Amino acid sequence: MTTVLPKQNAMVLDAPVDQVKSTKPQPKCMDVHLGNSARVRKPNIFKLFYKFSKIPGVYQLSEGLPNKKFFPVAEVNASTVNFDKYTKHNEAHDSIVAKGELIESTLQYGQAGGHPELAEWIQNYVDRSFDCPYEGGFATIMSSGNTDAINKIWQVFSNEWRPELPVELREGIITEEFTYSLAAECARVRGLNISSVAMDDQGVLPEALEDLLANWDFSKGKRPHLMYTISIGQNPTGATCGIERRKQIYKICQKYDIIIVEDEPYWFLQFDGVFENCYLKIDVDGRVIRLDSFSKNFAPGSRLGYIIAQPKIIRHLWNIAEEATQQPSGFSQMIMLETLKKWGFDGWNSWLGGLRNEYQDRRDLMVDALTPYKYINDNLVLDFKKPAAGMFVWVKVQYDNHPLADKFSHLEMSRAFWTMNATNSQPVLVTPGYFFAPSLVDAEHMAPYIRLSYANAEKTNISKWTDGFGRNTIDFWNITDPEQMRQLAADFPEA
Amino acid sequence: MTTVLPKQNAMVLDAPVDQVKSTKPQPKCMDVHLGNSARVRKPNIFKLFYKFSKIPGVYQLSEGLPNKKFFPVAEVNASTVNFDKYTKHNEAHDSIVAKGELIESTLQYGQAGGHPELAEWIQNYVDRSFDCPYEGGFATIMSSGNTDAINKIWQVFSNEWRPELPVELREGIITEEFTYSLAAECARVRGLNISSVAMDDQGVLPEALEDLLANWDFSKGKRPHLMYTISIGQNPTGATCGIERRKQIYKICQKYDIIIVEDEPYWFLQFDGVFENCYLKIDVDGRVIRLDSFSKNFAPGSRLGYIIAQPKIIRHLWNIAEEATQQPSGFSQMIMLETLKKWGFDGWNSWLGGLRNEYQDRRDLMVDALTPYKYINDNLVLDFKKPAAGMFVWVKVQYDNHPLADKFSHLEMSRAFWTMNATNSQPVLVTPGYFFAPSLVDAEHMAPYIRLSYANAEKTNISKWTDGFGRNTIDFWNITDPEQMRQLAADFPEA
Repeated sequence: MTTVLPKQNAMVLDAPVDQVKSTKPQPKCMDVHLGNSARVRKPNIFKLFYKFSKIPGVYQLSEGLPNKKFFPVAEVNASTVNFDKYTKHNEAHDSIVAKGELIESTLQYGQAGGHPELAEWIQNYVDRSFDCPYEGGFATIMSSGNTDAINKIWQVFSNEWRPELPVELREGIITEEFTYSLAAECARVRGLNISSVAMDDQGVLPEALEDLLANWDFSKGKRPHLMYTISIGQNPTGATCGIERRKQIYKICQKYDIIIVEDEPYWFLQFDGVFENCYLKIDVDGRVIRLDSFSKNFAPGSRLGYIIAQPKIIRHLWNIAEEATQQPSGFSQMIMLETLKKWGFDGWNSWLGGLRNEYQDRRDLMVDALTPYKYINDNLVLDFKKPAAGMFVWVKVQYDNHPLADKFSHLEMSRAFWTMNATNSQPVLVTPGYFFAPSLVDAEHMAPYIRLSYANAEKTNISKWTDGFGRNTIDFWNITDPEQMRQLAADFPEA
Repeated sequence: MTTVLPKQNAMVLDAPVDQVKSTKPQPKCMDVHLGNSARVRKPNIFKLFYKFSKIPGVYQLSEGLPNKKFFPVAEVNASTVNFDKYTKHNEAHDSIVAKGELIESTLQYGQAGGHPELAEWIQNYVDRSFDCPYEGGFATIMSSGNTDAINKIWQVFSNEWRPELPVELREGIITEEFTYSLAAECARVRGLNISSVAMDDQGVLPEALEDLLANWDFSKGKRPHLMYTISIGQNPTGATCGIERRKQIYKICQKYDIIIVEDEPYWFLQFDGVFENCYLKIDVDGRVIRLDSFSKNFAPGSRLGYIIAQPKIIRHLWNIAEEATQQPSGFSQMIMLETLKKWGFDGWNSWLGGLRNEYQDRRDLMVDALTPYKYINDNLVLDFKKPAAGMFVWVKVQYDNHPLADKFSHLEMSRAFWTMNATNSQPVLVTPGYFFAPSLVDAEHMAPYIRLSYANAEKTNISKWTDGFGRNTIDFWNITDPEQMRQLAADFPEA
């Protein structure tokens, strides 16, 4: 095991432009979109002395580091499964070991970008996986998970707005109609406008996006310069964006100069052998920031992910990391690194393939179990599509077809339906769609949606559990007493 | 090993006021100091369903969690030293194991406050260590290290300011004259005023603080409502604040309604058997937020620390953690938890005592080695005091006594001195004091200071290395050629 000096990230970030002629364009400078804090943030002053610290035999009285000899952990071992556990039903366990220099370097203060050796693995994996359409290549930086990454990106690329400021200065982000709630929430609390765009099973509708931007209501503030999208196996709707749709949307983002933040924790969970392109691969301008995570394909508790973007953008994220999380956990990094080294690129891809099969099986079991309940007495009740990726089936409950439809609003019915599910003889917990609404302006419109997750159940349970939901639906459809409906709606837990 | 449900934090945070009569005051509400984002931030909506998820046999299709059966890590073992390694020269290694439910729970998504069992250990340790002066007790939350904690606190308790806003809205923080640079930097980039207060070897001078606040220049913005202090073994000056000084400062902070953020990673490194009180223990108002870290007494790479404050403040930090880092790394938490459980409270304190001795020995060796160089030809050259705590000796170099004093500014001389140290026959790296200046308005005043760290050197090296610095000092004092001085100053690395 060799120690890799912090060369690669430094090189990628600060590399002079390649002198060799290339047909690729230079990435565009995105500085116009920087928030004030990113503009004035300085890189770490200690960097000045870096070359001096490499003088052989130098007496180091400068660094305020604790003494690495006092780290009480001498060695960390982990028993890991084999990468072909799911593809080849290989039940063998492997063992990884972190000791010596790796222990000392991952447990000491380090670079904000993470341990150089793991950073290099990630950079190489990214370079192999995605062909960069612009000159100079992608840069990468580790995050403490995608939520951490989103929060940092909003901080770099937006300014807080407050009512004392002229509304013309109010900035905004665009999200899908339903989205990961924390991404919207951490923009909302900064006073940003959240504009959500209508979507279908491929995500954002290009014409709706164009309409929003072309007819932007400047009385609300600036036209948004950031778009947040989960374009593969979207949470919560399961939508997956195809390449043609993607090109249309990218073109609109070029036209209105919008930075695309693609949050792709479900990227590896694309089913049926179909792999969609990502925004990163069509991004000639360097306007895409991609978030990848080990949360869904290794473990959420690793709090480890990585961000891919043009080098100048990554430099800003690096600088903010120095003021916030610094590097991700050394324990996470050492275990991740040793596992990835043992498995290699191909092993890692094989592991992802195994997970893909497992989740695909679960999707199929859920969809199969749900299908018989789609109609009651020839009336559409549960409207859903088979998701092409991810962890979720997104169901629209057709309350209009309920016998008591004329007596209750969709919102009341959805509350009653949730409570019925949670308290019926076989309780089933589901997630109301409005949990994923970036804003609650149109509750009635959002009320009919429900997210079902097939991720966390065992195969043996999926059919039974989904069937439970189906039977609760029938029971719900059998309610004819308005008083019972009213009571169920009233029992819905409220904030 | 039992699973602890997420009760303790929930209980501490949301506990109704104790009905039993108490002589302790209620903590004051600090909401007036909240930033806009903290005011509008909502707690996680999924909490609504918590009680339903506990229904026995409930079918769980709600949670978007990855399947814990797919976490590829079955078991983590660590070889750890014994807690009395340094006190009893016990070289035995211990072994800790994380497996089964602990692996699954630490590697799954969890509460923003961290794993309930480790959270409970920390809460109990805090309750045993610090007697809470106000009613209801302290609450705690884990952080991803103190830099993460500081960044979150500034976000909760301040608003970004930008030139478009009236200057009356500009907020500010108070720091010591020299301070941890990232604490100031992440306030500065938010557009906050940083007011630094003159200090001595006990830290902030009360009269200087009172003067700043009583005569606050409102043309700069609001009077600061936050004070950041490292009150024990201060970084970089090594200052330690005694109890009388502390009471004076606390009274001033009461008078001007200032929240005190005490960042105490060197708390356990108090030497000579003297333990100073902390602000937490005299905080009748609940205006103190204390940051404790495992970085210096376990390993920085753990990215694990904790924040102590009144429950309502911790609730805000909890909410922001949900939007940023979420819980600290599960790998860090499982190893920390198992180590702490194996060692127990007394073992942990014994470990801290061992570290204290080790660092104290290093301090003594450095001070002893430095003392012979204090004077050259009866002229004071290196002015320093023996620090009562921490990792640093703070040296003021008396450039006025240099033979070329009348030809160069302090700033020029300090640059030359730094370069001389880094490039002399025995190179020694030291840290210039201005690295720790919250702002660079008075470079000439800051120029003479140097921080020496005795933390990261082996005992066998400390005397030799410090002696190298001393001999470089003599060589520097022997410079009589202005051209040589000019060249050294010019070779100082510049941003």
